[in-house]
Amino acid sequence: MKKVTTHIKHFQYFYPYTVAVVGAKSETRVNYMSAAWHSALSFNPPLFGVLISKKRMTHQVISEAREFTVNFLDYDRVKLSAQMGRTSGHDRDKVAEFQVKLAPAKFLRSPILEESYAAFECKLADVRAYGDHDLFVGAVVAVHVEDKSFRTGGVLDTRKVKPLLYLGSDFYITIDADSLKHILPD
Amino acid sequence: MKKVTTHIKHFQYFYPYTVAVVGAKSETRVNYMSAAWHSALSFNPPLFGVLISKKRMTHQVISEAREFTVNFLDYDRVKLSAQMGRTSGHDRDKVAEFQVKLAPAKFLRSPILEESYAAFECKLADVRAYGDHDLFVGAVVAVHVEDKSFRTGGVLDTRKVKPLLYLGSDFYITIDADSLKHILPD
Repeated sequence: MKKVTTHIKHFQYFYPYTVAVVGAKSETRVNYMSAAWHSALSFNPPLFGVLISKKRMTHQVISEAREFTVNFLDYDRVKLSAQMGRTSGHDRDKVAEFQVKLAPAKFLRSPILEESYAAFECKLADVRAYGDHDLFVGAVVAVHVEDKSFRTGGVLDTRKVKPLLYLGSDFYITIDADSLKHILPD
Repeated sequence: MKKVTTHIKHFQYFYPYTVAVVGAKSETRVNYMSAAWHSALSFNPPLFGVLISKKRMTHQVISEAREFTVNFLDYDRVKLSAQMGRTSGHDRDKVAEFQVKLAPAKFLRSPILEESYAAFECKLADVRAYGDHDLFVGAVVAVHVEDKSFRTGGVLDTRKVKPLLYLGSDFYITIDADSLKHILPD
């Protein structure tokens, strides 16, 4: 038996979501933030979408740069995720303050995060407002993956990588590698 | 050191994503499918987005019904997810064949899944094409949650619920409850 809520105060029943650190380098600034609201949008062409509030510095920097990178973090980088998620680039230089290690992209001026196990280079293809967030749509022009983090076919190797998942309200969690199952309809 | 791919054949480096079973009841059909591509889009108003290929029967049924429900499954419902994800409503009546238990929604004609630990009632607010998928945007008018599945503030109670996560290529996994951490920037 379920309880029904129509005045939705705490809209976070959909977690856990993987943490993606997203950001860019514009003419004037480099800035990243942790984002849990994101999704693949299309296989062919590969498109990836990230939701960003208009209040965030990252919103401004990506809008100027017309490109962004998406960086997936290991569970042991949870502190970095909290730092990049709960502070604002309006107040401080997050990359310098939190000693974020950057690495050059192949096609973009915006760097990727060296400590990510996977990173996407995205050219900004569309921005669309949905309520209090904007959907930034990226055309994925390159994927960087840590050697041995993925098995053949691009499936995460859960013996090697513990992806960082966000559960809402500053709670984080990761996967149970022993629970992995390959399941077909019959 | 990372490997760079520019011809992206297996675009699934972003998983694990939670499985959501989405669907609706139109004048003529009731149909659901498993979807791993989804995201919250806005807190206020609460908006939730789901990506659906034009090929899917669910695309047609939601387009007709102008509403849909989003249903989150426990890890032990993995077989149901595979059945609802890897078969098409064009070929069969999935609800009947897989004995999906339905429960009435509060505001919609479309039912929710009785076996979900959380379910959203959504009125269709927007549809927009992104590559080979369409983004269905739902205005969330009601949330159903299984008693005791969430703690105060709407955070999943990981001692009670093992959410079903999709890893790509028919692999599934769940969380490690012992890895839960509450982390602030300092």
